[in-house]
Amino acid sequence: MELERFDEYFKKNREKHLQELFEFLSIPSISSLSEHKRDIERAAHWLKRQLEQLNIENVSIDPTGGHPVVYGEWLHAEGKPTVLFYGHYDVQPVDPLELWESEPFKPEIRENKLYARGASDDKGQVFMQLKAVEALFDVLGSLPVNVKFLYEGEEEIGSPHLPSYIEKNKEKLSADFILITDTSMHGPGKPAICYGLRGLAGIQIDVQGANSDLHSGLYGGGVQNAVHALVEILASFRDSEGNILVEGFYDDVKPLTDEERKAFAELEFDEEALKKELGVDELFGEPGYSFLERTWARPTLEINGIFGGFSGEGIKTVLPGKAGAKITCRLVPDQEPDKIVALLRKHIEKHTPKGVTVTVIEFDSGAPYLTPFDHPLIQTASKSYEKVYRTPTAFTRGGGSIPIVAAFDQMLKVPVVLMGFGLTTENFHAPNEHFHLENFDKGLRVLCDYLFEVSKLSLDKQVK
Amino acid sequence: MELERFDEYFKKNREKHLQELFEFLSIPSISSLSEHKRDIERAAHWLKRQLEQLNIENVSIDPTGGHPVVYGEWLHAEGKPTVLFYGHYDVQPVDPLELWESEPFKPEIRENKLYARGASDDKGQVFMQLKAVEALFDVLGSLPVNVKFLYEGEEEIGSPHLPSYIEKNKEKLSADFILITDTSMHGPGKPAICYGLRGLAGIQIDVQGANSDLHSGLYGGGVQNAVHALVEILASFRDSEGNILVEGFYDDVKPLTDEERKAFAELEFDEEALKKELGVDELFGEPGYSFLERTWARPTLEINGIFGGFSGEGIKTVLPGKAGAKITCRLVPDQEPDKIVALLRKHIEKHTPKGVTVTVIEFDSGAPYLTPFDHPLIQTASKSYEKVYRTPTAFTRGGGSIPIVAAFDQMLKVPVVLMGFGLTTENFHAPNEHFHLENFDKGLRVLCDYLFEVSKLSLDKQVK
Repeated sequence: MELERFDEYFKKNREKHLQELFEFLSIPSISSLSEHKRDIERAAHWLKRQLEQLNIENVSIDPTGGHPVVYGEWLHAEGKPTVLFYGHYDVQPVDPLELWESEPFKPEIRENKLYARGASDDKGQVFMQLKAVEALFDVLGSLPVNVKFLYEGEEEIGSPHLPSYIEKNKEKLSADFILITDTSMHGPGKPAICYGLRGLAGIQIDVQGANSDLHSGLYGGGVQNAVHALVEILASFRDSEGNILVEGFYDDVKPLTDEERKAFAELEFDEEALKKELGVDELFGEPGYSFLERTWARPTLEINGIFGGFSGEGIKTVLPGKAGAKITCRLVPDQEPDKIVALLRKHIEKHTPKGVTVTVIEFDSGAPYLTPFDHPLIQTASKSYEKVYRTPTAFTRGGGSIPIVAAFDQMLKVPVVLMGFGLTTENFHAPNEHFHLENFDKGLRVLCDYLFEVSKLSLDKQVK
Repeated sequence: MELERFDEYFKKNREKHLQELFEFLSIPSISSLSEHKRDIERAAHWLKRQLEQLNIENVSIDPTGGHPVVYGEWLHAEGKPTVLFYGHYDVQPVDPLELWESEPFKPEIRENKLYARGASDDKGQVFMQLKAVEALFDVLGSLPVNVKFLYEGEEEIGSPHLPSYIEKNKEKLSADFILITDTSMHGPGKPAICYGLRGLAGIQIDVQGANSDLHSGLYGGGVQNAVHALVEILASFRDSEGNILVEGFYDDVKPLTDEERKAFAELEFDEEALKKELGVDELFGEPGYSFLERTWARPTLEINGIFGGFSGEGIKTVLPGKAGAKITCRLVPDQEPDKIVALLRKHIEKHTPKGVTVTVIEFDSGAPYLTPFDHPLIQTASKSYEKVYRTPTAFTRGGGSIPIVAAFDQMLKVPVVLMGFGLTTENFHAPNEHFHLENFDKGLRVLCDYLFEVSKLSLDKQVK
């Protein structure tokens, strides 16, 4: 597609668009604070009006049990793919307020950066979806693809109601793929597509020895120490190189492809700079993998916390009767959280020392997610980025989990494409959140191009 | 010695003695509470008057920097051994007061048990030393041995000033042995001499990984986890049977003699009852030793506490940047605390995993103490017990540490004889502390007999 006509459209309307975005950003739609419930509703209504003005149909504000979902659709591109846009209109709290250089809900542009809570995460990027659709309507007279919109108001509090909403509305939300603009670029001027995320499985291990803490003089050496027993279990999980020793743990891990390893290596990640930043002499982990490979594409088992006995100042000669630890595993395709938890349980049972009993509690889990990076939807997106940014797109994976991505993946069973325009330096969740308008401008063009190019794909054969 | 004349003396004076003891117990000399400073002084003066009434010489109340020491001596038994009596006139606090059936500082006798704070620990037993000396003077007209008295007012707060007082007054305190009546019998009607105590050495291990807690998604698998590193170090200290793996740790351990093992076995300690009491399925520890052997005569390494990362409710996917643990070792003769700490340091250095730095802090330590149980001072004491109680004396060791015993042992370099008349069920440090008057009565006779019999020993050759 030739981008000139879109360029023209966005240039002509830039002031108007920014004014609209300012309006959206001025609504303090903080999802975690009940006193902002009305603001959440205002933001939802603001989106509803925007969709209606775009001639989007069946626009509704749907109750979820928590903050509502805003939905809309336009399905007149017969025979063309359907994209489900996802984003969130809620934002993080703003304290400590005194660290903001301008008020969080009075948007301000300084040095071509737009400062406001939500500027980058995620109102600014939601707004880009709307304006890309607006431009396509205006420039092409119609949309090249079918579109559905799903904007939620609870992302910043963990999307507690979205999975059940999706489950109940599977038919209505069905699409060929899901497009999320809520992630970051690889760096300034360096577009990235995050095509995989790790999943999560977590447990708490509680060890019970004697029914109370004991005097280490009277009982020491004669009764099992709950902390020692716990330590023995925990030490059995990994070897000193960082390999996980739980039997079967790696069985379902999809190996990195040569193409992926090559793509990661080309990112020239600076491990030296990272060591300096973290204040460590050496990085650490599974031998044979780079830092990016380990954190993006290899599973982990990490102790998140440990507790037992006396932790105050000085000495207390106690023999602890109980101790506990929290453990989470980051999972990669095709590991399944339930299966991993079962393996952990089995391992713990096998390694429980004498003289104690062990209880395992499971935490909420999330599946890993991957759209193979040679998938046409991913490759097409990368080309759209490259057309605008004139530099190769980075194919990245994320070490963390975005539970809602896995939920989409599992419930709607279609690819999820993560096209982010933020930068990791833009202070999401912190004071002085901002959004580089260069990426706002370029991103609009990327999205238009992508939706146009996607319309040429025959996804039926490729997807699933 | 024939005990009849002492019997007569104690029977005749029992009411008077109890009245005096009531007076002593009525003084709320709680050392840990500054509002009782005057009471501490009153108790010291009460003791001073008692000693003066006994014709003890050079009686003084000596400042220590904390609560004072009461000293006195009588050195006219030429050519005879000198005994240094030790005890303490301070007591524990009394809360929770509402659990006391009678007021802690209004002594009351119920069912031949004397209820009051300090009745057993240690005012009642200090008082027995004084009345034994009084009876010897009265019945024999003189003392069979030379005596010195050292009563402190800070035992319940850890004797912070006593070691320096002893160090400064070595000459004045020199004696052939030290007699302490502040321990317990083996059970009702079952006298015991505790002839050994374990020492103590302790460290805190602090592990530092990255300079802050990290997001386990972004960094997990790529950076050393401080808790994992700590766990690896801690797990290296012991094998799964409870054997300590620190190189050289057992080198200086004096093995149990066959006689000792036989003596311990004859105590018929009920391990089944202990398991029930502690709520564990099995006891645990170094193979090849009984519970009493492990806790009395074998060294230990116990984790007293561990901390790192998130310990609140639920899940927090953090990769901890730091973690720590507190460890203490109970030591037995002839282990030396400083040497053990050095071995621990070396072990930790050898087992420190990659990617972290470790700091070791040392806690106060105490040497183990042992007077061989075939020592004539011990054997003579056991015979005096048997003469009165008409049952064999138990030779026991203590798993805990009484730092002041080790201090006496090390500074004055003479044997310490622990002759206790309390019972472990007498609620020292708890509400309703009491003292079985049966043991008060019998104990007075035991002490008289012992001091008389000791006068026949020629200790010069035996001691040291």
